Amino acid sequence: MKITGAMLIGQTEVFGTQDTLLALNPSSGATLEPTFGGGGDSDVDRACRLAADAFDSFRESSLVARAAFLRSIGAGLLALGDSLIDRAHEESGLPKARLTGERGRTVGQLEMFANIVEDGRWIDATIDTAMPERKPLPRVDLRLRRIPLGPVAIFGASNFPLAFSVAGGDAASALAAGCPIVVKAHPAHLGTSELVGRVIQKAVADAGFHEGVFSLVVGKGIEIGQMLVTHPAIQAVGFTGSRSGGLSLMRVAAARPEPIPVYAEMSSINPVFLLPSALAEKATTIAKSYVDSMTLGVGQFCTNPGIVVALEGEALQQFIEAATEEVSSRPAATMLTSGIHAAYQAGIAKLSSAQPVTSLVIKPATEASCQAAPALFVVDAADVLKDPELATEVFGPSSVIVRCRDAAQMVDVAAQMEGQLTASLFASEPDDDLARELLPILEKKVGRIVFNGFPTGVEVGWAMVHGGPFPATSDSRTTSVGAGAIDRFLRPVSYQDVPARLLPQAIQDGNPLHIPQTRDTVLKA
Amino acid sequence: MKITGAMLIGQTEVFGTQDTLLALNPSSGATLEPTFGGGGDSDVDRACRLAADAFDSFRESSLVARAAFLRSIGAGLLALGDSLIDRAHEESGLPKARLTGERGRTVGQLEMFANIVEDGRWIDATIDTAMPERKPLPRVDLRLRRIPLGPVAIFGASNFPLAFSVAGGDAASALAAGCPIVVKAHPAHLGTSELVGRVIQKAVADAGFHEGVFSLVVGKGIEIGQMLVTHPAIQAVGFTGSRSGGLSLMRVAAARPEPIPVYAEMSSINPVFLLPSALAEKATTIAKSYVDSMTLGVGQFCTNPGIVVALEGEALQQFIEAATEEVSSRPAATMLTSGIHAAYQAGIAKLSSAQPVTSLVIKPATEASCQAAPALFVVDAADVLKDPELATEVFGPSSVIVRCRDAAQMVDVAAQMEGQLTASLFASEPDDDLARELLPILEKKVGRIVFNGFPTGVEVGWAMVHGGPFPATSDSRTTSVGAGAIDRFLRPVSYQDVPARLLPQAIQDGNPLHIPQTRDTVLKA
Repeated sequence: MKITGAMLIGQTEVFGTQDTLLALNPSSGATLEPTFGGGGDSDVDRACRLAADAFDSFRESSLVARAAFLRSIGAGLLALGDSLIDRAHEESGLPKARLTGERGRTVGQLEMFANIVEDGRWIDATIDTAMPERKPLPRVDLRLRRIPLGPVAIFGASNFPLAFSVAGGDAASALAAGCPIVVKAHPAHLGTSELVGRVIQKAVADAGFHEGVFSLVVGKGIEIGQMLVTHPAIQAVGFTGSRSGGLSLMRVAAARPEPIPVYAEMSSINPVFLLPSALAEKATTIAKSYVDSMTLGVGQFCTNPGIVVALEGEALQQFIEAATEEVSSRPAATMLTSGIHAAYQAGIAKLSSAQPVTSLVIKPATEASCQAAPALFVVDAADVLKDPELATEVFGPSSVIVRCRDAAQMVDVAAQMEGQLTASLFASEPDDDLARELLPILEKKVGRIVFNGFPTGVEVGWAMVHGGPFPATSDSRTTSVGAGAIDRFLRPVSYQDVPARLLPQAIQDGNPLHIPQTRDTVLKA
Repeated sequence: MKITGAMLIGQTEVFGTQDTLLALNPSSGATLEPTFGGGGDSDVDRACRLAADAFDSFRESSLVARAAFLRSIGAGLLALGDSLIDRAHEESGLPKARLTGERGRTVGQLEMFANIVEDGRWIDATIDTAMPERKPLPRVDLRLRRIPLGPVAIFGASNFPLAFSVAGGDAASALAAGCPIVVKAHPAHLGTSELVGRVIQKAVADAGFHEGVFSLVVGKGIEIGQMLVTHPAIQAVGFTGSRSGGLSLMRVAAARPEPIPVYAEMSSINPVFLLPSALAEKATTIAKSYVDSMTLGVGQFCTNPGIVVALEGEALQQFIEAATEEVSSRPAATMLTSGIHAAYQAGIAKLSSAQPVTSLVIKPATEASCQAAPALFVVDAADVLKDPELATEVFGPSSVIVRCRDAAQMVDVAAQMEGQLTASLFASEPDDDLARELLPILEKKVGRIVFNGFPTGVEVGWAMVHGGPFPATSDSRTTSVGAGAIDRFLRPVSYQDVPARLLPQAIQDGNPLHIPQTRDTVLKA
């Protein structure tokens, strides 16, 4: 499949004339062919109108057809073979083995949502049968189903060019819900975006769906994203990226004549609490896993463990020594973009110059393009409690060890934290009391609590929550990974005394879709 | 039970010193004893801090204890007997029979949420078991439950002094979810609020819950509400009232350092479409039910049918004549407050003076306090399509008949509507084609579709949606009546590899709570 530099608007290729964009190889700094044409208002308008036109037929497409469509996207991604992996590698600097794994995850995610579509639980089909004899008033026949919100704008993440981009989790869950999508290609992986976009475009055509089910637009600045979010046809936004980017989209969406939900996954420092007994048992082993986790993907994971909180003492000293040695031994590696690289270097420079912070490992920036070496710091909890800035996210392979005087101070650090995607606890049985004290605090602060493991590696499953209180995300009630992601794009509608012949199949008496229905409060699965 | 004019902050009576308030009898204009003391910043702060303190124990209270607590509130309301009905009647001008019915609905609502709490489906307990042998990577043990958001601020509605006020739907669903609540008493029914508040206060004590589970604050201006919504302990807001009030709370909540969700149920004109065949069959009968519905509760229902859309012709003429006769025969009645009454008189005056509008019935305002006579208007659809202002809500017993040239114009009117709580269709079998054309349009605009009936009378059940796209509500994904109302106050948390001894009961393997659990994607109800 050839990369042409076009936007994909419905089934049409459109070369944007607003500006020109080139992908860059972050390892070499070289530009990558071809030149992409960035779109403007009329392109965004066309894509959004097509999406609105496609909505009614797509949302009523059969569960079987929609599931098959999602699976065919997965098959199409695999059929691209090395060309997809190679291009993603060139554009992101991420190793091919990692990208191959990420492709597997992306295909698996599409498969999971295909299963979810067919399962039908997401429809929440509920029937309260009529009771004409009820006193003092008869009860009407009332039936509820959930329907999709409408066209969704999606902004892919730079750090997951496959699993959280054009055919990633937001796209898969929105399409599963029955929402047409308009994706803004991430400028850091334009070619990858076009390749994946063409797979979806073809899957739409093969399924016989309205062409407006999928469009891919390209643009340089923030304008094209704002056009998308302000377009009246757009009914929700999926975003993974920086806090400033997410906050800006939230503001734009809230200021619309008709405000719409924004699902922004933003920033998180993912604290790891090392409880005394667990730390004493295996300080060195934990230190090694810690460094593996913080350097994974050059630290460019939303779930990167940015701070470790532990009690001062011999075990922590052993942990610090082992972690320092590990971090020192890890080579520099290529970050995704020069912007991310510059922010990383500035972030670790700022940390290292902060008075209360001790730099355990920090290497000078190399001349080579986008190369980042891991960095490790240590600071006293008392200082973090005075200045929470010392424990804010530096996106990349940097982490801060926070040394607590005692367990009470560890609890204080937990209580002071802002909202996070995850919190991890290393704990063995003698740590139970402290774990029990931390758990209710952490439940209020995070979307996922991990025991005796690091938060990187987000399982795509039914029980996953990749979300959390603000500012980790814009909406703590939701998850962007896992089965629950589909809920973000649905709303309930109730049907009162609607004649059987006009009822949607999902809430008909015969249950022709064979989905779980709640009937007079009893769930029949 | 005596009404003292106090706020209820936890188990304490607090007489506010910020300002003084008096309830008014809208029928007579007389003030009602006693004088209430309005609270200030420190009172709100105390109530919110207590709520935060109560949160951890209340959210982990047993399902049985929480259900019993909700039922005991219902029993306490009934035990107040006539004193509650009498005071609510004095303060609202609503007939005692209506208030007795509303009390029944309020008690029934508490009972429904007690059942829902015990049922446990709302917890969404989900378990993905570990697969240590999985390739390429082992699967972790992952478990999800939903937990409550935290303390909730609740603003009762003037038009339902029982069912949508201190112990109303927002309160019942938030308490069911495990959220402590801080209620701002509606200034139009201060005494009713105190009576109901004392019932909840006592139920909290009887249950042995932390006193912060419930507080009731009183205040004159909008300041006390804004203090509540901006307090850092508050995690969500429930509101039923005007569009301007709801929009203002949405703005305040979005501007917080940590934005929180606002569930505002605001305005709706609840269009009713009379399809030609149904209209021809029973124009007079429908006209009578229409006037019953639009004058019910002096038109002060969120679901009041504010416009009726029909095709011009003989049947519509018959309908108009019958409706005009009915409306003319209905007496004036007391509205809830002088403010609502003044807005109603201004609204119908504006409509009657609009050039394209014909007044079918409009009576001059009487001298008596808060008396509103019903009003009826007719206008051509072409004019409404040009000026949608002609079809905006006038809160009260006023309605506009919109006359369409043809079916296509009826579809245009539907397509132009803003978000609504409900839409109704009167249709018989020959109308099916037009109904099928209207249905997908209406599904996108409303929360509930009613066939061959009027939208007033909101059944409290599992399949009810009392919600709808903006500006009917602030969040189309939710409902404020019915079982789904609890979902507004919950968020998911995921537990990875948490040792069995530290797992919440809801997601333990033995299922000690006997609730529905999804295990490896299979739901066991």
